[in-house]
Amino acid sequence: MISGGMRIAGTTLTLVFLMFLFVGLSFGADVDQAALKQAQQLFSPLPKVMESEQNPVTPEKAGLGKMLFYEMRISMDGTVSCAKCHPISLYGADGLRKAIGNHCEVNPRNAPTVFNAAAQISEHWIGNRTSVEDQAKQSLTGHPAFGMAKYEDVEKRLKGYKEYVALFSRAFPGDMNPVTVENFAKAVGAFERTLVTPSPFDSFLKGEEKALTAVQKKGLETFMNTGCAGCHSGTYVGGQMYQKFGIVNLYWKHTKSEKIDEGRYAVTKNEADKYVFKVPVLRNVEKTPPYFHDGSVDDLETAVTIMGKVQLGRDISSEQARDISEFLKALTGEIPADVMTVPLLPSIE
Amino acid sequence: MISGGMRIAGTTLTLVFLMFLFVGLSFGADVDQAALKQAQQLFSPLPKVMESEQNPVTPEKAGLGKMLFYEMRISMDGTVSCAKCHPISLYGADGLRKAIGNHCEVNPRNAPTVFNAAAQISEHWIGNRTSVEDQAKQSLTGHPAFGMAKYEDVEKRLKGYKEYVALFSRAFPGDMNPVTVENFAKAVGAFERTLVTPSPFDSFLKGEEKALTAVQKKGLETFMNTGCAGCHSGTYVGGQMYQKFGIVNLYWKHTKSEKIDEGRYAVTKNEADKYVFKVPVLRNVEKTPPYFHDGSVDDLETAVTIMGKVQLGRDISSEQARDISEFLKALTGEIPADVMTVPLLPSIE
Repeated sequence: MISGGMRIAGTTLTLVFLMFLFVGLSFGADVDQAALKQAQQLFSPLPKVMESEQNPVTPEKAGLGKMLFYEMRISMDGTVSCAKCHPISLYGADGLRKAIGNHCEVNPRNAPTVFNAAAQISEHWIGNRTSVEDQAKQSLTGHPAFGMAKYEDVEKRLKGYKEYVALFSRAFPGDMNPVTVENFAKAVGAFERTLVTPSPFDSFLKGEEKALTAVQKKGLETFMNTGCAGCHSGTYVGGQMYQKFGIVNLYWKHTKSEKIDEGRYAVTKNEADKYVFKVPVLRNVEKTPPYFHDGSVDDLETAVTIMGKVQLGRDISSEQARDISEFLKALTGEIPADVMTVPLLPSIE
Repeated sequence: MISGGMRIAGTTLTLVFLMFLFVGLSFGADVDQAALKQAQQLFSPLPKVMESEQNPVTPEKAGLGKMLFYEMRISMDGTVSCAKCHPISLYGADGLRKAIGNHCEVNPRNAPTVFNAAAQISEHWIGNRTSVEDQAKQSLTGHPAFGMAKYEDVEKRLKGYKEYVALFSRAFPGDMNPVTVENFAKAVGAFERTLVTPSPFDSFLKGEEKALTAVQKKGLETFMNTGCAGCHSGTYVGGQMYQKFGIVNLYWKHTKSEKIDEGRYAVTKNEADKYVFKVPVLRNVEKTPPYFHDGSVDDLETAVTIMGKVQLGRDISSEQARDISEFLKALTGEIPADVMTVPLLPSIE
């Protein structure tokens, strides 16, 4: 009898346990579905190429652009190429607080990754470059970039390589004088428009719920529900608006900033633009420390915590910061195979 | 009759022509055979890997070494990696007269290519590095190289990356404390020992006579018969001996050298070593201007002409210089596919 009663009790317990498990699972699935739906409203998967009407991507342009991306012989001291501050091996950023260019001149701000960068409202932290093409062109004469005195000097150097002359002609077929800095910019821009890194988050957005881990999903929900996604949204999880850094609290009281940067005010001279920066793209953020416009913070969880404090006026708990960081790791994408190879550059003939 | 006579005369002429052609062809073939035999005595094809008893190449070591080759976060200013002065895109050299390292310090001499370099008698122009491993290690604290104050600082930085710790453990399995600069050097050295670029000249040496063009064969003969191959011989077409630069004439009277470099004298303090340098490897020389220890000459034909003048006391004609240069282009090799890809480097965790 005793053993029979235990058997009945055991069966009941098992049933109750299975019921809870079922309810728990379907509740979990509902939560996942809700998170996915919310995410699909806020974000969207990456395109194959970040197209531009002004500069349609062709294989010829992008192929030449890849070579020019590595070309350092068109910088004043011969050491600076696009790849110097945007090495592929470090996911298109350079690991420095502030980028170092020609003659070791230090740039005013941190070099953002070149991946998934071409579809932003503008380039550079303060939006003083209208497009990746504009950025590429202006870098040539930027002092802490390539440091060349005149655009003509760049063109003259490029014309010294027969192979480049041929490749420019092929990439810009209607052009009588194809070797120009404008076409340099278009070629580099076309290459950069192919620098797209699809990630587990893209698979998730396409409906593959298991692409994110449980913690990443929790982090995503926190990211959406605490306000991070208010600015970091869209296909690129950022890059679509300007925002004051320090809406609630002065940013430099929380970062280790060495000096106060007035941000976009330098561009517009509009008082309202003081301390305003472009909201950075968060794709591959795990792989591109240090963080913020001045590279003042080394680790992701600290950066997340500071953002909560100065942008949202929230004390993000260490658990939340960890969850959000785990979600951000799901934004680490795969670099296209072709981009992982180095081009061979011409020698003078 | 006239037409018959013409026909006979025509036939005779054809026969005579064919005889000449045959003699000419077999003479040409004989010359080719003789050149090939002479070349096979002076040179030999590249091995697959430049092996070392002290540092056997393993996939684990070479794979880690490839990552470390690109690692710039172990330099004082965060901008110097092996790849900075030896970019693959420029065939392992940097295109500068003199390499520029940490904090833009200029190196005393031109950066030689890292390809086919590991089997030389020593490294650097003046032989002050015993091996590629020694070169890799000493670069870390070299001022115009990585510029780190102490080896321990490099080790500390490397230990900051979990992925590196794991990869060092795997590459040096018996080692209790694998993350050391000695193992850094072994890993980088192992990678560099795989940097072998088989060229048309290797195919030729293996008996494939058509691998060189007619002009290249002519250039090869001139190269062998005017004395160039007296020093530039062996598998690497150089790299096996020291030699005074300017045996017959003072080199700086012919190059555009800005100052006189006493060469290996700086290492040995032996008067006989004044202006003595290691004979450079000529593989890929077409792709690695500018030339000489100080990068004082931009083009290959000029360099060849100067070598004739100062080393051999010969006035090499412009035709000979062109032929030799064409031969030297047959030393341009194929970079292994794996070497053409960029490694992804760890971020701090």
